[in-house]
This record gives sequence, structure tokens and C-alpha cells, in this order.
Amino acid sequence: MGDKVRLAPVGLGRWARVLARGAQRGEVVELASCYSRSEDKRKAFQEEFGIERSAPTYEELLADPELDGVVITTPNDTHRDVVTQALEAGKGVYVDKPIAHTLEDAMAIEEAVRSTGRVFAVGHSARRLAGHRTIKKWLDDGKLGQISLVETNFSNERGLELTEDTWRYYASKSPGGTLIQLGVHHADNMQFLLGPVVSVNANVKKLYTKSEVPDAVMVICEFANGILGYLGCGWASPGVYSMNVLGTKANLFYDLDFTHWDESHLADKYSTLRSQFYGQSERQTVELPPSDMFREQLDEFALAIRGEAVVEVGVDEAVRALAVVRAALESSERKGGAVLIDEVIEEARA
Amino acid sequence: MGDKVRLAPVGLGRWARVLARGAQRGEVVELASCYSRSEDKRKAFQEEFGIERSAPTYEELLADPELDGVVITTPNDTHRDVVTQALEAGKGVYVDKPIAHTLEDAMAIEEAVRSTGRVFAVGHSARRLAGHRTIKKWLDDGKLGQISLVETNFSNERGLELTEDTWRYYASKSPGGTLIQLGVHHADNMQFLLGPVVSVNANVKKLYTKSEVPDAVMVICEFANGILGYLGCGWASPGVYSMNVLGTKANLFYDLDFTHWDESHLADKYSTLRSQFYGQSERQTVELPPSDMFREQLDEFALAIRGEAVVEVGVDEAVRALAVVRAALESSERKGGAVLIDEVIEEARA
Repeated sequence: MGDKVRLAPVGLGRWARVLARGAQRGEVVELASCYSRSEDKRKAFQEEFGIERSAPTYEELLADPELDGVVITTPNDTHRDVVTQALEAGKGVYVDKPIAHTLEDAMAIEEAVRSTGRVFAVGHSARRLAGHRTIKKWLDDGKLGQISLVETNFSNERGLELTEDTWRYYASKSPGGTLIQLGVHHADNMQFLLGPVVSVNANVKKLYTKSEVPDAVMVICEFANGILGYLGCGWASPGVYSMNVLGTKANLFYDLDFTHWDESHLADKYSTLRSQFYGQSERQTVELPPSDMFREQLDEFALAIRGEAVVEVGVDEAVRALAVVRAALESSERKGGAVLIDEVIEEARA
Repeated sequence: MGDKVRLAPVGLGRWARVLARGAQRGEVVELASCYSRSEDKRKAFQEEFGIERSAPTYEELLADPELDGVVITTPNDTHRDVVTQALEAGKGVYVDKPIAHTLEDAMAIEEAVRSTGRVFAVGHSARRLAGHRTIKKWLDDGKLGQISLVETNFSNERGLELTEDTWRYYASKSPGGTLIQLGVHHADNMQFLLGPVVSVNANVKKLYTKSEVPDAVMVICEFANGILGYLGCGWASPGVYSMNVLGTKANLFYDLDFTHWDESHLADKYSTLRSQFYGQSERQTVELPPSDMFREQLDEFALAIRGEAVVEVGVDEAVRALAVVRAALESSERKGGAVLIDEVIEEARA
């Protein structure tokens, strides 16, 4: 136990539990403390995960000299303060996606990461799914040829369930709704696979949710090399998670059973990746190796704190994913006209 | 035989053969004559399909009093003249999709249909696939709930094979490339299922084809009721034909094996339609009844000539499908900004 990296979950809701289970499947992380404003939540969390202690205030948590880092799952609009405080206290920081609810807040975090030099990781875990890793390998090996279209969808029913007592209900806290909560994953996945998006066109609608935020979004992304990417996300249907890649030599179709999303050590067992070459009447199933995205990203974060790994998704990647969200919202306000990614990033920096 | 409706294929290429086979699977149509400028093609076609006679000129074909109608598969940019001549000669006209290569030509055809009062049908056959018919039934029965997103793709490799001796190579004859040849099908399918598209945003690219026309296209459609529709089409990959519909109660996923597209009596045997309700871990296969889109549309056309059926896809539907193509091309020229469908139709009428 003494060799493990000591991390503390901050914000002890549903997602903290999913990540804690992921961390405890690994051998690198010790959940050494935890923090929430609510004492009841702290006690319940300690009991559930066998965590020895907790801190009654965030300041006391960060003052704990035995703590190496924090795993933050507080609401998006609190990320800036919660992250920068931890960085300035000398802790490594893992924060769930999106990096922040606005690009301005993301820039403040970027500045804190640069000035403190601390380890910083953002939970764009989905790119670690075996399906996406296998697509990457096929791309790198040239098996798909040249890519023309990549199509993604991430949707579920959460928009229909939102109530006024949840922060995701509010446009000021969760701008973009399904786009910033779900779509931002594929904004990262697509850029991981095909390089930077340079511009987007989008149509963003609020159709059936009672909340303030969009529940039907379509975005067209143009990549630096001219490839087109589609990002669809809804918040008013059963769960969908998919990516299709169309190339001059072959196509790949990736489809994940969303009901197993939270159990990342199982997710790829319930996924299918199928290939299609010319003249093939039946698509072929591509074997997927086992993967565990939540465990892997927390292990990597912990090892990075010990100087034994490099964080794959840091500020730069997370800012580019969030910039797609921001640019899409601006595009929709401009009736779908193209918005440049570099432009929204520069505007936020100014 | 005497009771059959006597039709003549006009333009005797690959697609005329696909349609002739469809017509001969039925009991309503007699292929009574045929026409191409090339005598060799006429003779070969007569022999292949057991057609008693052919005409050395189009005028002679249309002067044949025993002929009830024509089945036109000439290049898109010839539709206007070939169609209007036949209508004015008193024949019923079936023309393959798109109705024309420009909305202006489509309007001239519209005028000829109205002034002659003849039977006119456009080959937007795909909406007759059992998958689309079943989706329509689920929509009408309320089994999907309210729809937020519909996503479609129709792609194949033809853009990579285009050479200068084929009309599809040229932007003046086939504006939009894959969008007007393949995407126009889903422009009709989506409007068949969800009502009129009111505006589109699009990004249209020419990436890998040596021809003059686009081979990578993404279009976002907004329907009158706010629903969003995605239309993806490429011309640089193995064949894809799919439609996903996401609703508040359930999702449907339709996927057709493009290698069987030409054999429309088999196409639905090689298709899958799968449903997804809440909490279902596995998607369920939805049984598809047998269908034969090419036969069915030609039977309907022939029966309409006899006054025993009504044409499902006439001028109005075909113009609205082509208008999505035209609006998408204009949107892309305007960097993806929204273009109204009614606006491009009014412009073409003016």
C-alpha cells in the first residue's frame, strides 16, 4: 500500500463512484481521503470504498501533506476554482470532462497548469475504449486508406429526466446540454483519430427537455486535411454511442452498448467493431482486446504524478474538445455558418 | 399480354437493365419497344429482354401509338428535353432520380406535367424499401415517441472510378456528385418519413475523386417541426446505406447491404432493422416483409397510366428532394450558413 499514489475524490456523486470503482480495479491508486461539503456524503463514500479519512473543508483536504492528487467530479462550472486551488496547493489534478463549462475558465486552468507545473489530466476517457484504439491502429497501419467521412453519435435520455435541482438543468452551468456533456467525448475522439478540427457548422435545438439546455444537436466538423466529421448528440432517446469511419480502402463501424458505459472494464465486451472491404457482402467482426478506460486513465494520472507516465489528455486536448462545443454553439447562433476553432480559442484567451 | 401496359426504356445503359429486370419480375408491364441512339445498344437490349422492336429515333418511338409510356434513364442533364417531349407526345413518363440536374429544369418539367396532365413518376425508389416502410409504420403507430434526430448515409466508391468519358464526371451535368446521385435518395426518404425540410446547412468537399464533382458531403436538415436530420454521402469508400431514427420511446437502426442494391427483390433480405427500447442491452431484430422497390414503382406507374393507381413520387416530392441538394450546395458556398428550401424553389421558379 505504501507504494501507491494517494488520491482523493472531490465531489462525491454518481460519477465519483464510477471513477472510484475504476481506480480500485487497478494497483496504482490508493483512495486516501475524500471531500464533499456534505458530511453524510463523505461518510457514506468512505464506507462504500473503505477510505480511512475525509476532510471537512476543501482547504483542509488540500493541506494534507500525504495526499498526492485529487479526482474532481464537481459540477462543470466549479472546475476552475476547484482545479486551480488544488494545483496551487501542489497537488496533481484529474478533472472530469469537460475541462470547464466555458473556454474562459479553461484558459484560467491552462494558466494555472503552466504556472504551477503540476500534473493535470482531463477525463476524456472514451478515446481509450478498445474500439477507438483499434480504429487508430487501422488508420496508422493504412488499412482504411484515405478517410473521407467520420460519423459519431452519443445520445441518451438524460434531458428528459432533468429537474431544477440539478446543475445540468441550467444553461449558465451546462451550456450546450447534451453537446457539452456527451458530444464533447466524440469531439475529443475524432481529434485523437484525425487531427485538429479547424471549423464547424452546427444546428443546436431544444426540443423535448423541460430544462434550459439543448437536447438535439448536429455538428459538421472540418479537419485540417479536409476530412469531414459529423457529431450527433441527443438527450431524448435510449442510449447510443457509435462511430463510423469511411475510407478509400475499407470502412469501420463501432457501436457500444451504452447500458454498460459505467462499467468500463466491461464496456468493450458489449461493443462491436465491424469492418467492410470492397465486395464483402457481410461485415466482419474485428476482435477487441480487453480495456478499462476509467481504470487506465486514473492509473496513468497516478503514474504521471510519480514521474512514471505522461498524461495523454491534458489542457491542450481538452481545450480543443471544448472549443468544438463552443464553436458549435456560436455557429448555431449564426444560423449554422462556419466558426473557426482557432478563432474561439483566441477570443477566449484575449 | 394484351392487358399489360406497354412501356419503352429510353437510354439503354446499366440502370435501364436494372429497371427492366424489375419490370419483368412484375405482371403489369410489357417492355414493348426501346430507344437509344446506338443501334448496337438497341439490338443488345432487345435480345437481352426479349423486346420485339426498337425505334431508330426518339421521335419515332414517341409516335408509336401502341406505346403507353417511357422509362427514362438518360443522363440527368437530358431529363428536361427527353421528359417534356414524351409528355407532349401524350405518353406517361417514368424518369429516374433526380428529376433533373437543376431546379430550373425541374420547373420546366413541372410545367409540362401540369399542362399535359400526363402520368409522371420519379424513381425515388428507396422509400419503398421494407426498412423505410417499417420505420414509417412505427412512426405512425407512435412506437418511437417523438423524434429528435434522424441520421442517414449513402456512400459508395463510384467517385474513385469516374473517367472523362462518363457524364457523372462533370459538374455541369452532375452538380453535387455523390449528393445528387446518392444523397438525393435520403433527401426523399427523410421527407417521406418526417415531412418537409425547411432549411439546410452543409459542407461539400472534393477530396479524392479525379472528377469535377464532390465526393464527401455532410448536410444538416431542419424539418418543419424542429427535428434535425443528417445526410452524409461519400463517393470514396465501400458502399454504405443506413438510417438511424432516435425517438423519445425507442430508436431504430436500418442498415442495407449495398452490394445487393441493384437486385431490389433481394435487397431487404440483406438488410437489418433493429430496435432499441430503454434498458434493453441487446438490440432486437425487426422482421422485414419482402419488398421489390424497382418492380413496385414500375407496376404503380403502369397502373397509374391505366387509371388504377396513384403515383406516390411525382413532381412535388422530387422537387423537394432536389431542392435539398441545391440548397446544400448553396449553403456550402456560403460557408455552411442556413439556406431555406422554399427560397431555392422560389428562385428557380422566378
